[in-house]
Amino acid sequence: MAAARRMVVIGGDAAGMSAASRARRLSKRGELEILAFERGHFTSYSACGIPYWAGGLVSGPDDLVARTPEAHRGRGIDVRLRSEVTEIDVAGQRVRVRELDASGGAERWHGFDDLVIATGARPRRPDMPGIDAPGVHGVQTLDDGRALLETLEGRTVERAVVVGAGYIGVEMAEALTRRGCRVTVLERGEQPMATLDPDMGRLVREAMTGLGIDTVTGAEVAEVLTGEDGRVRGVATKVSEYPAELVVLGLGVIPETGLAREAGLPLGESGGLLTDLAMRVRGHANIWAGGDCVEVLDLVSGRPRHIPLGTHANKQGQVIGTNIGGGYATFPGVVGTAVSKVCDLEIARTGLLEAQAEEVGLRFHAVTAESTSRAGYYPDARPMTVKVLAERRTGRLLGAQIVGREGAGKRVDIAAVALTAGMTVEQVASLDLGYAPPFSPVWDPVQVAARKAAAVVREAADR
Amino acid sequence: MAAARRMVVIGGDAAGMSAASRARRLSKRGELEILAFERGHFTSYSACGIPYWAGGLVSGPDDLVARTPEAHRGRGIDVRLRSEVTEIDVAGQRVRVRELDASGGAERWHGFDDLVIATGARPRRPDMPGIDAPGVHGVQTLDDGRALLETLEGRTVERAVVVGAGYIGVEMAEALTRRGCRVTVLERGEQPMATLDPDMGRLVREAMTGLGIDTVTGAEVAEVLTGEDGRVRGVATKVSEYPAELVVLGLGVIPETGLAREAGLPLGESGGLLTDLAMRVRGHANIWAGGDCVEVLDLVSGRPRHIPLGTHANKQGQVIGTNIGGGYATFPGVVGTAVSKVCDLEIARTGLLEAQAEEVGLRFHAVTAESTSRAGYYPDARPMTVKVLAERRTGRLLGAQIVGREGAGKRVDIAAVALTAGMTVEQVASLDLGYAPPFSPVWDPVQVAARKAAAVVREAADR
Repeated sequence: MAAARRMVVIGGDAAGMSAASRARRLSKRGELEILAFERGHFTSYSACGIPYWAGGLVSGPDDLVARTPEAHRGRGIDVRLRSEVTEIDVAGQRVRVRELDASGGAERWHGFDDLVIATGARPRRPDMPGIDAPGVHGVQTLDDGRALLETLEGRTVERAVVVGAGYIGVEMAEALTRRGCRVTVLERGEQPMATLDPDMGRLVREAMTGLGIDTVTGAEVAEVLTGEDGRVRGVATKVSEYPAELVVLGLGVIPETGLAREAGLPLGESGGLLTDLAMRVRGHANIWAGGDCVEVLDLVSGRPRHIPLGTHANKQGQVIGTNIGGGYATFPGVVGTAVSKVCDLEIARTGLLEAQAEEVGLRFHAVTAESTSRAGYYPDARPMTVKVLAERRTGRLLGAQIVGREGAGKRVDIAAVALTAGMTVEQVASLDLGYAPPFSPVWDPVQVAARKAAAVVREAADR
Repeated sequence: MAAARRMVVIGGDAAGMSAASRARRLSKRGELEILAFERGHFTSYSACGIPYWAGGLVSGPDDLVARTPEAHRGRGIDVRLRSEVTEIDVAGQRVRVRELDASGGAERWHGFDDLVIATGARPRRPDMPGIDAPGVHGVQTLDDGRALLETLEGRTVERAVVVGAGYIGVEMAEALTRRGCRVTVLERGEQPMATLDPDMGRLVREAMTGLGIDTVTGAEVAEVLTGEDGRVRGVATKVSEYPAELVVLGLGVIPETGLAREAGLPLGESGGLLTDLAMRVRGHANIWAGGDCVEVLDLVSGRPRHIPLGTHANKQGQVIGTNIGGGYATFPGVVGTAVSKVCDLEIARTGLLEAQAEEVGLRFHAVTAESTSRAGYYPDARPMTVKVLAERRTGRLLGAQIVGREGAGKRVDIAAVALTAGMTVEQVASLDLGYAPPFSPVWDPVQVAARKAAAVVREAADR
């Protein structure tokens, strides 16, 4: 009998373990051996769930684990926890692994036939005094989450500062508010949610203030202040100090691709790995990559972007596993869809922002429309603002942003599908969407905006 | 100065008044005179809101009126209430109008340059003993709604029978349950919601039973029973009697096209008017029709269908008004999307049912998948069943049906847009949809079903 091929996976979360599971399902055990190295304590977990664990809505970490190492092992995937890959030897088709809990930090080489790089991303940690003090937390891994919970449960946290008002920042602001902390969010930019245009970000800021979350913009953090015990006692910008017993970093993440870089694998501008449509690392027939460590093709701008999201990681992992398992699948790209919430405020976007459209040479009309989540007369109809970008002349939808309350966020899917299909705003306005008074006004809010944009496009064409 | 052209509208609800409003906006008053005849007491109202008025969620009828006759008049539309058009003289370009409240029922002819037929639909009223007894109600117009409310408020209604378990039937079942009535729904078919496949209808039936709504299927109503006072005292099928002080007819509607038929205008199989894409009645340059009295093109089957829905009526009215006003617009067709709810049960569909697909010669795989409205670990994640039909060989999405709780219904829009774009289930599974734990599992439920269907399509192709 021929020796089994060996698939080695670096990183035991969404992309890596989806790839492993899918390949396992497609291949006999005698034909494919699967070895996965994870430097933390957990596999296949939802990092996106950490804010809800922190907020007490979810009991972690177990509830956030979709599949334990034991479950993976039971299905024929050899998962090694606390095992950090320290080198990829591309030519030699092997990886060097350090067992973190072994005395002396023993290292060993493991050969591979196929390698999957799913090393994820790491939180940006600005280089400043105090950044490593106890009480400063990232929220990227379950291990991070556990450390955060220890801080929250181990001492009284009356005041918390969240640095950065992106998705993680606002979700953590909700979580800490829910725990009774007084929360200040410090954002360097002009408005929270730099993933939105500033006019839409302003709506988020107003709503956050209304929710009792102190939101300071134009605030560049210069130092984490520590007390005599070495613990965090606050944060300082150039102009002000914000006392806090807890600091959460929500500055976004960068691809964790140090290993790949050292191995000479191709990286994009963001530092993410470059792959082909089958999720093969470019130029390498048997090295694959997926999840937060890769760049994805943005179908609207035609540019590669780094968009770390669990939903992409899962899909990419499945594509990799299918291909390694002898099937055929591709990951066609993304349109930049994201949705989030702060308390009852829902925030969503898809496609391009104004600045992103300009950057790639697109000219457009930007139109904003107010509407409601249900028929205006129906109880609990909530206001909603939808902004759409439509290309000049062609009227092609380029992007949509939504800020509203209950029922606002997932409406972005209408625009996401329409963007993928290359529809014009006029086509969007004509779509046959679900209507009944408890669900929508007779024109869905996305269509209200699209219709308004179509009129602007038409008017400009008539001139 | 040349005399103004005259636009005459028959029917003062969604399609007719949208057409009038849009044409008004595009035309100067001296150039276009707009005359609208409505036989009832209201204009521009939401008939879809009647169940919520009946259920006490909305205070009617005023809240259901989007624009009053006075408001229309203030904007230069001459609306005549209680004015019934009794004849269309196509060759003479005129309509005969009876003023219902005038003594002697005076009739007058009014000439038109453009005519808009927006006569709507009327509830099916089976021809059976007792059908016209006091206490038997349709719920098609605000006048119907007012009569129903008078019954509900004028006497004690402990038991109510709803005949027909389609959208109106189930919505009225919720409304009457909410008012404290014991409700029995009698449905002739095998399952409630004939707009779903029977396997999905069964889920609705089980849920309705769980909600305390007695749902009897295979029940053909033979007679409305009346008491000595002539009022309703129940309903009889061939095998059983159901006592009730109120009977609501939810048997669907048929196009109200008697006038059009007498005028020799072209009607389809359903009795709905046939139009072109600009909503012109076929073969007539200056006669237009929209709303519940027309057939629409079903883009999935390629067949005309009668789909009475306020959302289509509004869009079609806008298209007509744009064209009469000198602009250009078309109504491209529908994909058969509908959403409804019974208490907290949400029901949605788009595209073709199994029987509809078979009828037009399509062969397909039908796949059903269970999922949840939010990440499984997130509070209030509710179960949801999604069924999709995918064409054999091509994998093209042909239809989707959803039954679930909060968060289920509007997800049908994902499938509706994908259907319009002609996407395959594999493409649907790859879509970049909004993901965050409070909004969705990492694979949206529609994608879970699409992915499963894609696997079935692939497997069949491999054989």
